[in-house]
Amino acid sequence: MKNLQTKIVKEGIVLSESVLKVDSFLNHQVDPYLMKEMGETFANKFQSEGVTKVLTIESSGIAPGVMTSLSLHAPLIFARKRKSVTLTDELYTANVYSFTKKEENVISVSKKYLSPNDNVLIIDDFLANGQAALGLIKIIEEAGASLAGIGIVIEKAFQDGGKQLRDKGVRVESLARIKSLKNNIVHFVEEEVSV
Amino acid sequence: MKNLQTKIVKEGIVLSESVLKVDSFLNHQVDPYLMKEMGETFANKFQSEGVTKVLTIESSGIAPGVMTSLSLHAPLIFARKRKSVTLTDELYTANVYSFTKKEENVISVSKKYLSPNDNVLIIDDFLANGQAALGLIKIIEEAGASLAGIGIVIEKAFQDGGKQLRDKGVRVESLARIKSLKNNIVHFVEEEVSV
Repeated sequence: MKNLQTKIVKEGIVLSESVLKVDSFLNHQVDPYLMKEMGETFANKFQSEGVTKVLTIESSGIAPGVMTSLSLHAPLIFARKRKSVTLTDELYTANVYSFTKKEENVISVSKKYLSPNDNVLIIDDFLANGQAALGLIKIIEEAGASLAGIGIVIEKAFQDGGKQLRDKGVRVESLARIKSLKNNIVHFVEEEVSV
Repeated sequence: MKNLQTKIVKEGIVLSESVLKVDSFLNHQVDPYLMKEMGETFANKFQSEGVTKVLTIESSGIAPGVMTSLSLHAPLIFARKRKSVTLTDELYTANVYSFTKKEENVISVSKKYLSPNDNVLIIDDFLANGQAALGLIKIIEEAGASLAGIGIVIEKAFQDGGKQLRDKGVRVESLARIKSLKNNIVHFVEEEVSV
């Protein structure tokens, strides 16, 4: 998605060879037009898949997730990173280790909102090692639901999450695929943006 | 907002005299059409205030927040409940105690995204004791920015947050105001919904 790549080049901050900070439009401040365009783009890609639920993880997946959900006419579910007092139902859970935050979270989804009749599209902000996506897939499998595919805003293609998922036969669509962050420069897998 | 009140009556679960669970459309599963209507409703109410930023707290404020942000043509900022590795900037912070979750969080906003030129609309899912709103107001004041007002999805009008804020002269607009949750029944301040 060209507008996204342009935004990454203009506003993204390379913190290390593996960490890209996009707090000005995705992870802290949020550009609502870009979210809407992302939602429409994901919806176009997965339009024919018969998606019944969009699934993401709090917090940064929610903005692109709800726009995708609106465009696909399917509810959004955001997995919780820890149990909440008002989430008293039985839960599907999975452990997710974040290499960026160096911590393990238990993510959970209420059993009420996923069933074997569901065909689920996962949406997330980043794909790196694939831990979050694998946790969400485990939850979808526990529910007996089907996986329609995965929509990712920014894929760090130099890490192996995308390959792992595609090797399992999962359809992964990333709006921006980063080849490298070396020397503080963002290189995309397809160089669609001239800087 | 009538569609919201209807949804609360149909799907809300009264867990106690002070806790209403709306996980089927707001706090875990999210109804994107309702979020869009909420965003448009908040935008209509605050259209003439010259809002430059919409401010909420992760996670449940993000979906109504991004829709409001889209309708008001202003970026959304979601305050973080704890520091992230990639949020290394200087931060505005405030302590917020949650009576529902019985825990205190430090919420933070990067200094980059709020300035004295900003006129900020706060959006949040619930207003009860007003702790979250007061924390966000403290952050806006620290930034030297102006407060345009507060848009709340569900106000527990039997708790004193709304009164405290209105007594301070803050404009608070709530889409649903609950008078009581006694005997497992939701009573609204204005009984617009016949059940």
